[in-house]
Amino acid sequence: MTKIAICGGSGYTGGELLRILLGHPDVEIVAVTSERSAGKAVDQYFPHFKGLTDLKFVPLDKESLVKKADLFFLALPHGASQQAVDYFVRAGKRVIDLSADYRLKDPEVYTQWYAVEHTYRTTLRKAVYGLPEIHRRKIKKAQLVANPGCYPTSAILGLYPALKAGIVSTEGIVIDSKSGTSGAGRKADVAYNFCEVNESFRAYAVSTHRHTPEIEQELSLIAKADVKVNFTPHLLPVNRGILTTIYAPLKNREISDKEVVSLYKKAYKKEPFVRVYEEGLPDIRNVRGTNFCDIGIKVNRRTGTLIVVAAIDNLIKGASGQAVQNMNIMLGLDEQTALSTIAILP
Amino acid sequence: MTKIAICGGSGYTGGELLRILLGHPDVEIVAVTSERSAGKAVDQYFPHFKGLTDLKFVPLDKESLVKKADLFFLALPHGASQQAVDYFVRAGKRVIDLSADYRLKDPEVYTQWYAVEHTYRTTLRKAVYGLPEIHRRKIKKAQLVANPGCYPTSAILGLYPALKAGIVSTEGIVIDSKSGTSGAGRKADVAYNFCEVNESFRAYAVSTHRHTPEIEQELSLIAKADVKVNFTPHLLPVNRGILTTIYAPLKNREISDKEVVSLYKKAYKKEPFVRVYEEGLPDIRNVRGTNFCDIGIKVNRRTGTLIVVAAIDNLIKGASGQAVQNMNIMLGLDEQTALSTIAILP
Amino acid sequence: MTKIAICGGSGYTGGELLRILLGHPDVEIVAVTSERSAGKAVDQYFPHFKGLTDLKFVPLDKESLVKKADLFFLALPHGASQQAVDYFVRAGKRVIDLSADYRLKDPEVYTQWYAVEHTYRTTLRKAVYGLPEIHRRKIKKAQLVANPGCYPTSAILGLYPALKAGIVSTEGIVIDSKSGTSGAGRKADVAYNFCEVNESFRAYAVSTHRHTPEIEQELSLIAKADVKVNFTPHLLPVNRGILTTIYAPLKNREISDKEVVSLYKKAYKKEPFVRVYEEGLPDIRNVRGTNFCDIGIKVNRRTGTLIVVAAIDNLIKGASGQAVQNMNIMLGLDEQTALSTIAILP
Amino acid sequence: MTKIAICGGSGYTGGELLRILLGHPDVEIVAVTSERSAGKAVDQYFPHFKGLTDLKFVPLDKESLVKKADLFFLALPHGASQQAVDYFVRAGKRVIDLSADYRLKDPEVYTQWYAVEHTYRTTLRKAVYGLPEIHRRKIKKAQLVANPGCYPTSAILGLYPALKAGIVSTEGIVIDSKSGTSGAGRKADVAYNFCEVNESFRAYAVSTHRHTPEIEQELSLIAKADVKVNFTPHLLPVNRGILTTIYAPLKNREISDKEVVSLYKKAYKKEPFVRVYEEGLPDIRNVRGTNFCDIGIKVNRRTGTLIVVAAIDNLIKGASGQAVQNMNIMLGLDEQTALSTIAILP
Repeated sequence: MTKIAICGGSGYTGGELLRILLGHPDVEIVAVTSERSAGKAVDQYFPHFKGLTDLKFVPLDKESLVKKADLFFLALPHGASQQAVDYFVRAGKRVIDLSADYRLKDPEVYTQWYAVEHTYRTTLRKAVYGLPEIHRRKIKKAQLVANPGCYPTSAILGLYPALKAGIVSTEGIVIDSKSGTSGAGRKADVAYNFCEVNESFRAYAVSTHRHTPEIEQELSLIAKADVKVNFTPHLLPVNRGILTTIYAPLKNREISDKEVVSLYKKAYKKEPFVRVYEEGLPDIRNVRGTNFCDIGIKVNRRTGTLIVVAAIDNLIKGASGQAVQNMNIMLGLDEQTALSTIAILP
Repeated sequence: MTKIAICGGSGYTGGELLRILLGHPDVEIVAVTSERSAGKAVDQYFPHFKGLTDLKFVPLDKESLVKKADLFFLALPHGASQQAVDYFVRAGKRVIDLSADYRLKDPEVYTQWYAVEHTYRTTLRKAVYGLPEIHRRKIKKAQLVANPGCYPTSAILGLYPALKAGIVSTEGIVIDSKSGTSGAGRKADVAYNFCEVNESFRAYAVSTHRHTPEIEQELSLIAKADVKVNFTPHLLPVNRGILTTIYAPLKNREISDKEVVSLYKKAYKKEPFVRVYEEGLPDIRNVRGTNFCDIGIKVNRRTGTLIVVAAIDNLIKGASGQAVQNMNIMLGLDEQTALSTIAILP
Repeated sequence: MTKIAICGGSGYTGGELLRILLGHPDVEIVAVTSERSAGKAVDQYFPHFKGLTDLKFVPLDKESLVKKADLFFLALPHGASQQAVDYFVRAGKRVIDLSADYRLKDPEVYTQWYAVEHTYRTTLRKAVYGLPEIHRRKIKKAQLVANPGCYPTSAILGLYPALKAGIVSTEGIVIDSKSGTSGAGRKADVAYNFCEVNESFRAYAVSTHRHTPEIEQELSLIAKADVKVNFTPHLLPVNRGILTTIYAPLKNREISDKEVVSLYKKAYKKEPFVRVYEEGLPDIRNVRGTNFCDIGIKVNRRTGTLIVVAAIDNLIKGASGQAVQNMNIMLGLDEQTALSTIAILP
Repeated sequence: MTKIAICGGSGYTGGELLRILLGHPDVEIVAVTSERSAGKAVDQYFPHFKGLTDLKFVPLDKESLVKKADLFFLALPHGASQQAVDYFVRAGKRVIDLSADYRLKDPEVYTQWYAVEHTYRTTLRKAVYGLPEIHRRKIKKAQLVANPGCYPTSAILGLYPALKAGIVSTEGIVIDSKSGTSGAGRKADVAYNFCEVNESFRAYAVSTHRHTPEIEQELSLIAKADVKVNFTPHLLPVNRGILTTIYAPLKNREISDKEVVSLYKKAYKKEPFVRVYEEGLPDIRNVRGTNFCDIGIKVNRRTGTLIVVAAIDNLIKGASGQAVQNMNIMLGLDEQTALSTIAILP
């Protein structure tokens, strides 16, 4: 039984880590932190856990936590994670960081988009970008995994086979994403009140969203060329789910839907969590509550464009589920352990 | 491995039976029927099952099905179930019927509320009302279990301890229920279109809903007296969940919240799926996707009324989950097998 | 043109006052206050007003406001309203107060439920409870109108004809209300975040909600007897609308639906904003965006209970629309001025 | 008073025509048709009209209707409209057709996308595409106006100033649209059931949607060049509203947000129903229930792309409101008559 600590357990990703790990046969949660709710029983704060755990929130006291746990999940705000990750890594612990702090290889790019310095560059160099479908081998041996952002997970998985096979241009790519509101986190902010989001729909952070450099970093690695993308996130009036619609100019507009589907199916044939559709298109509800990324393909021959639609649950494949998938890989366990749930419909 | 057939697998309850039973280690689904989708792969019809099952829908051919399976779940429309249940029961099979056809002991009452004759009275006499918290012993040995309706499950569990202990009057009980739209089933009907239900709320079938006699039958059994209730269902713009608010005149208005909570906790102390709240009140989201019935208690001393709030997932504890719970009891398995999921929040 | 000031214009009721009064031909809004947004253009704060008004928010400076306006709407928090109302009333202005501060005749009852003293008892005695269907004559001459709460409006209008005619008992009344989330106001509070309310449903403040004494005060006046009620509010995952389901024991259970409908139609025959259904039942969507109160009737002869379902838009007939209706009455205008909108469906 | 007939009054656009025209001071609705509901009172079918109209549905009997009305709105299904439009036009009546039948100038293109022949080519040549912001002069004198589709309205208004000024390329344009579910009409279809749409989001008709040629026809006219676009519609779990996110390659990537905003403001400066945002971005809720098209602008200099976000209410500016705007123009009335409503928030 690997001993697990969750730092930052009172948000949505923290709650999902708890839910998934409580059902994991090979790990034991030894601590879950929350500054505001320290001392409170987890099932008092999250009544859906009533009767299912005796855990109590504790403050994030690194000295005490480091003695208790072997592997640390950090679900802290961006910026706040930097120092804590460094502490646990230097103490020899394995760390999966759900913040953005260790995702960007280039600390200058990090500073440019996040407006803070990266002061732990040695540790940063150890970080592996935790997208198993692309970096599984490195994840296996990693001490520090930077768990991908929710939008990037959908965008990168949606473009990976096409960019790798070189069937699309690296210029003129449009990534139009729509995310459920849990992506904004669990915080008191009028802008995310029910009445402000329900029956509403809007784009935000157009051209300036912080997930842009993360997407570009990984796409550039895949394409072995500098890739710049138009990335636009939108806020959906649903609890969960990201649907990303991707437009990429085809090099050869005579390619068929079938050929592209076949290319994608081949690229993901060993992947337990990527489902490529032979017909039809994904819907966020088919992946809700699961670690799947569903992918649909359409070729527009009139315009010479490949259109890819990718759907994930932003809190699972886009956060806590992928984090557990990374943990399973790091610990040499079956990658699907505790992650083989089916979407609950409707 | 018990061999299972699901008759009527293309509705919401059928889909949930499939989902739960696909994760059950002790059973094998050998057939799932649908007249309209016969021949179609289950995961083509329900894309959330993509990659998770090879099952195909078959027509409901009783002669062929009876040879294949040991235990039958019937999720057929009311009326249509009568004959099929009788057939499988007479063939010596164990049957769990999710329709209303075998719930009412008195065929005259059935005819009065459902406007059809009951033509299988011998089989009707064999039926056990499948609410494990009240009839577990009989369920264990039953050949035919009539799985309770969704509203009755919440109402009966909400009133059982109070009526049994005799702390409330059997007259003047009000049961005000609110159900998610999946309770209306999966059918083409403008009245249940998204735009007709979203941002909408209404009562329906006031004083005439068919679950009324089912509630009254069980409450009368518990109270050992004739109980008549005001039962009003409402349609909630959510996918899942029933919240039932119950008002029952207290015999002694000096009783405290604490005393009633203690009475309820005692009554349900061995129940794996009933959670009595010591403080706070249930919310449907805390039971969504689970087999729990959450119960909250308030005494109104000003009016001398006990107010009980009960929450279930209408498709799980109110249908398919309870059906699997009954199956587990009938097969002598751990009652929680395949049912120990935690609500997915948010 | 009557000059109007709106004190507290940045909440939902303030926004609705603005919207309705901008379309009113006989009044001019001369000031709208907001402490936090003072100096900001109204259409910057509320983009739906873009291009439709040049108003800017100002701070609530009573000395300056009293010189500018003839009639004051106060949409301030409970408690905060007391002093401001008194100030404007003593300055000889007409005031419509949307808070609860002047609704309860008995200051002891006010203190008991709101946990604050009422320090303006002389002014309190001047207040008229602004439910036009019951108190129109007094409203006409009133200097100070206490605009009713949203729940009470639906409950009182739902019971008025029955209680007045004496066909129901004054004991054992149950009022089970369900309100859209805008009823909670526009404030930063995690509990009202989209993800906490969407796909969720719960009761709150059971037996303790502050609208209880207001309902009881008015029902007692109508019945000329002390009326105590069970009142339970619930939070609906919709933006707007209250549906109240009322259960009242019938004195004569042989009365028919038709007779009660006829009684209600007669009671409200001159009312422009009350619609009694001859068949079918109200739905909140039919009154959304309007000043209507829709009422449906069912007699349950099995239990001897009258069931009334009343629907309003909580922000219009339950707040700002009723306030403008009161203003129209006070100013001797056509009562429907600026209020004759039709619900926008779907 | 112009006498108006509405052919096809029982769908959502028909209902909205009724609602808007009931509030119009210069017209009288003399007939509203529905085959299925013929004989039924409008307020029985649409309870939100209760007490507000005495109209009854009649069958679409062209011979009888042509004698009664001066101007006809047709809200019939595509294909069914062809013949009826021709009949009324040949009878000398003015017609506003809300179907797609007379929008495409080239009958071959119509056949290619709608898979039916156009058998009224003489009448087709008379049709004016009813987008007032572009074709107001022709609309004024038109006998037949083809009212634009909902998606095209948002896409064309979003691109018009940029294409006209020639600041963007005519190649590589991406139009990613998201529509509320009322866009699918009011029909019995499981795919649009509440439980199938709520908490769900998906793209549909990718590259094949029938609004594509309509968008391309108008954009080509504006650009005076052949424009082909990638158009992808998505289904939003809201009742109303379209948000269209447009990506167009800039010819000069040094252009600023401010310059483009200024270009757009100038282009639309006389338009009563187009609001260009100087800061911030549109949200469908700000236009819900109104005839506005709200437009926001962002220049992405990193990729050299103009991003335009346009929001409309699909049933109003995208259908019935625009139809009434066209009628106002045709009748020489103030264009805003009956259309000056403010969005109801929240």
